[in-house]
Amino acid sequence: MNKHLGGQSIKFAEPVSIVSAASVVGSKEGEGPLSRYFDVILSDILAGKKSWEKAESEILRQSLELAVKKADTELDKIDYIITGDLLNQNTGSTYGAMDLQRPMFAVFGACSTIGEALSLGAVFVDGGFAHTVLAGASSHFCAAEKQFRFPLELGTQRPPSSTWTVTGAGSFVLSKDGEAPFITGVTTGKIVDMGVKDQNNMGAAMAPAAADVIAAHFRDFKRTPGYYDCIITGDLGTVGKELLIKLLDAEGFDISKNHTDCGIEIFNPEIQDTHAGGSGCACSAVTFAGYFYSKLKKREINRVLFVPTGALLSPVSFMQGENIPSIAHAVVAENKR
Amino acid sequence: MNKHLGGQSIKFAEPVSIVSAASVVGSKEGEGPLSRYFDVILSDILAGKKSWEKAESEILRQSLELAVKKADTELDKIDYIITGDLLNQNTGSTYGAMDLQRPMFAVFGACSTIGEALSLGAVFVDGGFAHTVLAGASSHFCAAEKQFRFPLELGTQRPPSSTWTVTGAGSFVLSKDGEAPFITGVTTGKIVDMGVKDQNNMGAAMAPAAADVIAAHFRDFKRTPGYYDCIITGDLGTVGKELLIKLLDAEGFDISKNHTDCGIEIFNPEIQDTHAGGSGCACSAVTFAGYFYSKLKKREINRVLFVPTGALLSPVSFMQGENIPSIAHAVVAENKR
Repeated sequence: MNKHLGGQSIKFAEPVSIVSAASVVGSKEGEGPLSRYFDVILSDILAGKKSWEKAESEILRQSLELAVKKADTELDKIDYIITGDLLNQNTGSTYGAMDLQRPMFAVFGACSTIGEALSLGAVFVDGGFAHTVLAGASSHFCAAEKQFRFPLELGTQRPPSSTWTVTGAGSFVLSKDGEAPFITGVTTGKIVDMGVKDQNNMGAAMAPAAADVIAAHFRDFKRTPGYYDCIITGDLGTVGKELLIKLLDAEGFDISKNHTDCGIEIFNPEIQDTHAGGSGCACSAVTFAGYFYSKLKKREINRVLFVPTGALLSPVSFMQGENIPSIAHAVVAENKR
Repeated sequence: MNKHLGGQSIKFAEPVSIVSAASVVGSKEGEGPLSRYFDVILSDILAGKKSWEKAESEILRQSLELAVKKADTELDKIDYIITGDLLNQNTGSTYGAMDLQRPMFAVFGACSTIGEALSLGAVFVDGGFAHTVLAGASSHFCAAEKQFRFPLELGTQRPPSSTWTVTGAGSFVLSKDGEAPFITGVTTGKIVDMGVKDQNNMGAAMAPAAADVIAAHFRDFKRTPGYYDCIITGDLGTVGKELLIKLLDAEGFDISKNHTDCGIEIFNPEIQDTHAGGSGCACSAVTFAGYFYSKLKKREINRVLFVPTGALLSPVSFMQGENIPSIAHAVVAENKR
C-alpha cells in the first residue's frame, strides 16, 4: 500500500502511539517557565561526569532509560533506538545509547534531529518493521559553545539575535500499541539555503526551512493552519518567529494565531539573559517531551504540528565561508487516530 | 503485517530493487586493483574546489547525480535522499546533497553509514513510504586525516595496523520497481565496545561489532555462512579480518571461505603503501557500488551479505580517554527475490 502522499509527506495507515515522553534538563532550563513540566532537573551541569561531552551522553542515557520506564516496558522490548545530537561524530548519542544495547540508527539533523528521529521511528512502527522504537535527542550548552563558537572562558559577548543552547535530552517511546497522542503523519524537509552566514543568527537561517516544510505540509495534506491547535517550531527564537510568520503569510498561510516556538517557550529572556531564545537538539526535544506532550495528554490541545528546525553548519564550513543552510521536519501529533 | 523477524532483523515482504549504483573515487583508488569498476576517477584530489571538505561534498554530489542518471530516472522522482559522512556535523552530506533539493534524512554510522542508509532506504520502499530512495555515503582522505588524526603536513608515520581513508562516494537508487539485485533483508547493529583505544587500529575496534551483527543475522534468519557467495565487511582491513574470522568461529560460524573486506579489496598495500587496507564511509560504499554490484549484475555472485563497519569515535572522545565503540549494519543483496 502506498502511504506516501506525494510531495514530501507520509500519512500513516495505523497511527503510532507516543507511549511515553521523558525530559532531563540542566539547572538553567529548570529555572525557566516550563520548570514543572520536566521530569529531571539536574543541579550539576556536568551530571557527575568529567567533561561536558560525557555529561551530554549521561543526560541522553538518563532520558532514554526514563522514557522506557515511563512506558512501563523493558529495554529488551525496544526494537530500535534512533538518536542524534550536535557533537562531532554524534558522540553524544554513541556514548549515551550504547549501554542500552539495542539495534541503533544514529541520525543528524542538527537541532531538527528529534523531528527526524520521530519520523523514522513512526515509519518503522507503522510499516510493521518494529513494534517499539525509542527516539531521542540531546544537546549541552557548554559542549555546543565549545564546538561551534568560542571557549566559554573567553566570556564573549552575545548579540541580541543569538540563542542559548539547551542542556538536556528528550526521549520518546513509540509503539504499535498504546494510547493517544498518536503520530498520524510526517512531512520531511529539504535543505534550504537562503544565503545566511551569521552563526549568531540561527533564527534567520532556519526560518526559511521551517516555512518551506510547513507550506509543503499544508499542500500535501490539503490542510490550512486552522487545522492545528498549535504549530510548534523548534528553535527559531523571537527573530526567526517573526520571519517565519511573514514567509508563510506570503505563501497564503496565516499561522500568526497558533504558532509558537520551543525556543521562545523554554526561557524567560528578561530574567535569564538568553536573548532570542533557546536552541539545540534538546530545545525542541525537551519542550515537546515535557510541556506539549503533557498538554496533549490532558487534552488541553488535541492537534499539533511539531516542526523541529536545524541549522546545518559546522565550525569548518563556517570558517570556509559556506552559507548556513537549514532543514526542518514536521511531525503531526493528534489525540484522534 | 509484521516484517520484523525478532532479534535485530527485518525480512522484506517485497524485495527492494537496487536499480543503480554509482562510484566516484580519487586518483589513488583509481590506481588500485578495482580501477576498472569505478564510474569516475578524479585526477584532482580537490575536485576543482578550494578545500578538502568542499571536495568531499562535490564528490558526493557527483555520485548522487550519477546514480540517478544510471537509474534512468529524474531527480523529482526521488522521494527521499539518505546520506552520511565522517565530517563534523555531516557537512559532506549537507553541502553535497542540498542542490538536489529532495526531502532528506542525514544519518551517521561512521564508516558503516552506507549500511544504515541502505537499510533505512529499503524500509521506506518496502513499507510503501517511498517509491524511490537515493542513498549515499562519502569520505575524503585529506579531510578525514585533518579531522581525526594529524595535519597531513606533519608527515606523521603510520603504524602497520593503520588504514587509509578512501576518497570517494558511492550512491544507490532503490526502488519498488526494478530488476535484480534486490535488498531482501537487513540486520541492524548494536554498539559494541571491547575497550579498544588505539585510533590507529580501527580494524581491531570494529571486528567485534561486525562479528556481533553477522552472528545475529545468522541466528535471526536461521542461515549459515554457506548461504552466501560472499560475506563482505566494510573496512576491517587485514588486522580486523583475522580477528573477525576468529570471533565468529568461536560462535560456531566459519566464514573463512567466503569472507572478504572492502578495505582489503580496494588497495594493493605492497604497491600503494596503504598498510592494513582502506577505510572511511566511501570504502564500503564505492567497493560495493563499483565491484560487488557489477559482479551481482553479471551473476558472478548471487547472494551477498554486505556489512559496512563503523568506529564511533571523535577527536574529542579520543582525547578524553573514551574507548572506541563500533557498529556494523548488515544488508542482504540477492539476485532472487
